[in-house]
Amino acid sequence: MSAPMHAMAVDSFVMMLRNLLGILDKGEAHARAKGFDPAVLVSARLAPDMFPLSKQVQFVCYQAAECSARLTGKEAPHLDAGEETLEALRERIKRTIALLEAAPAAAFEGAEDREISVPLRDELVLELKGLAYLKDWAIPQFYFHLITAYAILRHNGVDVGKADYVAGLGSAIRKRGGGGTQA
Amino acid sequence: MSAPMHAMAVDSFVMMLRNLLGILDKGEAHARAKGFDPAVLVSARLAPDMFPLSKQVQFVCYQAAECSARLTGKEAPHLDAGEETLEALRERIKRTIALLEAAPAAAFEGAEDREISVPLRDELVLELKGLAYLKDWAIPQFYFHLITAYAILRHNGVDVGKADYVAGLGSAIRKRGGGGTQA
Repeated sequence: MSAPMHAMAVDSFVMMLRNLLGILDKGEAHARAKGFDPAVLVSARLAPDMFPLSKQVQFVCYQAAECSARLTGKEAPHLDAGEETLEALRERIKRTIALLEAAPAAAFEGAEDREISVPLRDELVLELKGLAYLKDWAIPQFYFHLITAYAILRHNGVDVGKADYVAGLGSAIRKRGGGGTQA
Repeated sequence: MSAPMHAMAVDSFVMMLRNLLGILDKGEAHARAKGFDPAVLVSARLAPDMFPLSKQVQFVCYQAAECSARLTGKEAPHLDAGEETLEALRERIKRTIALLEAAPAAAFEGAEDREISVPLRDELVLELKGLAYLKDWAIPQFYFHLITAYAILRHNGVDVGKADYVAGLGSAIRKRGGGGTQA
């Protein structure tokens, strides 16, 4: 089961983070084309009491890094976050991808049964075994912030769509009946 | 590996669908409290060319049902969709939960290696093995529509938060240092 745990916590998150890089690129291009400062998008929100794009991207990265650390028995990373430009957010994503890719698959051996304990606010703690932590906490949290980031850009007129969201799957998409792949 | 596949494709999706029921309940209560027709929320969108809440909920349900069918070698369900009220959307979610729970865990035996083929538009087809299909297609698609539904309500002033999004995890959350569980 270590291979599937690694595939889910590293390979899939890395693919989605790469897709997010492409989505942020489109945000930047949109701002340039419209002639407004791309940093406007960094502070855009879906609701006044909801986090802006910057925090959504920081949290996506943190969730992925935290998940990898906890499943491999390492200390959870510190959430340092101060990016104020799309470029800085993309750099954070790239650093997170490098961090995830540095964890060897073998380090996930037995991760599904590892006892995970996540401190929450108000003196609460989440306690789950590794598989439950991955499927019921890390994955839902990761996608929450990723999709909210996407939604903030989409809501602000950036021309992103499902094709950008699943861009990394290109090599698995073929012409029906034919053999060619479509990027 | 059949147990983890079933846990991810059934248990986690069912938990998140139950959370979505609670989120829609809050939407209904918000509309009643503000004195507007809850159906207004059903047709709310984050962008003019993005699907409204109704379709987001229909797609969440479809993705879950499709995933379960494909991983167990059954024919993919037909997407019938015509709900125009929050009540009808909740009924669809409940039917989907019942459908997922009816699939025995044993039916997921070998699902991770099953050859999956998903017809897409424009004569394209997605071809993946079961585990890759689950982690790189079904899960991202499921969460995409679930979180977009949440974001539509959040954007429209409904008082939902992370606690509603992860409501099903209550029994895994404890007071630090203590033994009691927090619902």
